[in-house]
Amino acid sequence: MIRFVVVDWGTSSFRLWAMAADGSVLAERKSGQGMSTLDPSSFAPVLNRHLHALSIPPEVPVLICGMAGARTGWREVAYLDLPLRLDTVPEAAVQVGEERDIRILPGAAQRSADAPDVMRGEETMLLGAVRRYGARGVVCMPGTHSKWATLQDGVLTRFETYMTGEVFNLFRQHSTLADFLSGTDFDETAFAAGLDAGLQQPAAVMSKVFGLRAGPLLGLVSENIIPSRLSGLLIGLEIAGAKASAGTDVTLIASGPLADRYHRALTLAGLNPRLIDADDAVRAGLAHFAAAIWKIPHPMETAK
Amino acid sequence: MIRFVVVDWGTSSFRLWAMAADGSVLAERKSGQGMSTLDPSSFAPVLNRHLHALSIPPEVPVLICGMAGARTGWREVAYLDLPLRLDTVPEAAVQVGEERDIRILPGAAQRSADAPDVMRGEETMLLGAVRRYGARGVVCMPGTHSKWATLQDGVLTRFETYMTGEVFNLFRQHSTLADFLSGTDFDETAFAAGLDAGLQQPAAVMSKVFGLRAGPLLGLVSENIIPSRLSGLLIGLEIAGAKASAGTDVTLIASGPLADRYHRALTLAGLNPRLIDADDAVRAGLAHFAAAIWKIPHPMETAK
Repeated sequence: MIRFVVVDWGTSSFRLWAMAADGSVLAERKSGQGMSTLDPSSFAPVLNRHLHALSIPPEVPVLICGMAGARTGWREVAYLDLPLRLDTVPEAAVQVGEERDIRILPGAAQRSADAPDVMRGEETMLLGAVRRYGARGVVCMPGTHSKWATLQDGVLTRFETYMTGEVFNLFRQHSTLADFLSGTDFDETAFAAGLDAGLQQPAAVMSKVFGLRAGPLLGLVSENIIPSRLSGLLIGLEIAGAKASAGTDVTLIASGPLADRYHRALTLAGLNPRLIDADDAVRAGLAHFAAAIWKIPHPMETAK
Repeated sequence: MIRFVVVDWGTSSFRLWAMAADGSVLAERKSGQGMSTLDPSSFAPVLNRHLHALSIPPEVPVLICGMAGARTGWREVAYLDLPLRLDTVPEAAVQVGEERDIRILPGAAQRSADAPDVMRGEETMLLGAVRRYGARGVVCMPGTHSKWATLQDGVLTRFETYMTGEVFNLFRQHSTLADFLSGTDFDETAFAAGLDAGLQQPAAVMSKVFGLRAGPLLGLVSENIIPSRLSGLLIGLEIAGAKASAGTDVTLIASGPLADRYHRALTLAGLNPRLIDADDAVRAGLAHFAAAIWKIPHPMETAK
């Protein structure tokens, strides 16, 4: 029986899980209806259509994390400041439902003039990783905007966001290199070479990127390896920047091809990554927060 | 009396000068008809319209440098390899005219697997800077694709291209930061702060760029300074990469706002820039090459 529904509502994606009281997943919905495709008045109807498709009764509550709480989302939910005890996050959730109990979780803000930063959704993923897997220390969450967070006893003490994924997409879609970046084949050697250059010579990375165009033009490099080389260069630049504040052990929270690519990259960079599935972590965080809000005994956690 | 015509035909611009035998400029034409806006068959008609507008007689020859010689330009002119004695460049120019003597100069290629690179037009600018101003050592030529070249006794021995200008434009036109980057005001303090961060922490630059979004979102930074801060960050990253191979003295070949911005940046980075006007340098290089090809005594040079 569906006891509650959780939603990870990001910039470019919508993911919903209908959960039993014991934390098991009874149904799932995924779509591309992320914040960037919606105006504020569209969030409620979109959610309702997904709930209707699963025939979720009105007494089942819904908890949402991510960009739905952004200024340009469904309803702005103010950021919580650092240091942030992650299990206090649901106390600041905001009600948006009328006929149904629907709440949006806040994000976290680092109000530092030197390194201002914000996250929405990752705080929930981090709590899931803490509660379900005992995550601590430095955590890498790759994506369009990769987050590197530091956890101490369930408290988020600092984080940094790297625009790695967005920059890769800018090059692929709009740059003078775009013609060379349409392929999706992964070349391990090219990725490793790019990674090494990014790690060893971060300041030279924009010159190395130009070399990706000059190399094939001069017949020195095959065009096929360019996407993998660029990916390596940009991930290398990210790790070079983030590594300084990390020890050897890094928790990697990722899914799909990015999980494999970052696991490889962190290992090549001399770190010791421990992989946690991102879908699993965010769902666990949402389920934990939902259990706290609606006083649901939570076996996923007690099983630990 | 017009003795010859020279053209700097770049990716995004067309510049033509009608020159007297003594190297003085008698007329000028500028337009946005760069390579990126033309197909190969359009180059000849475009040039002819400009020549016609100035009533240039058919016996006046034309010398062209830049992207007109690219694979997707008017006619591909093979790159010359490094080390390249710059005054030998015109020997490899290719005739494209039928009724008129029109020649396109080659570019230069660095055929290194580690640092493949190409230029078209800058070799002519460099020769002008050598002949007219005695340029030597490290030369910085900022732009969409900034070039850093090393000259030894009129020989181009190496160069690197940084995608600084293109990356700035990608952020301004297509990124999640675009809304913050429409302004054109220059804020000196923000530029200097960005520059310092880029120089000191090049590996952190993609995190600092994200901070440009988070700062105003948190009310910590004014939106107005974002373009200047981003410009400083990216130019700082470029100089951090290029500086390693430079001494203290750097020749800066630039025009307009970029000249001021790079002069400031190089000085803040502890280098000692000497500024040469870019228009003047490329025209001097073209005039020198034209004089060599068509055996015109060249007072601009003998005056030195």
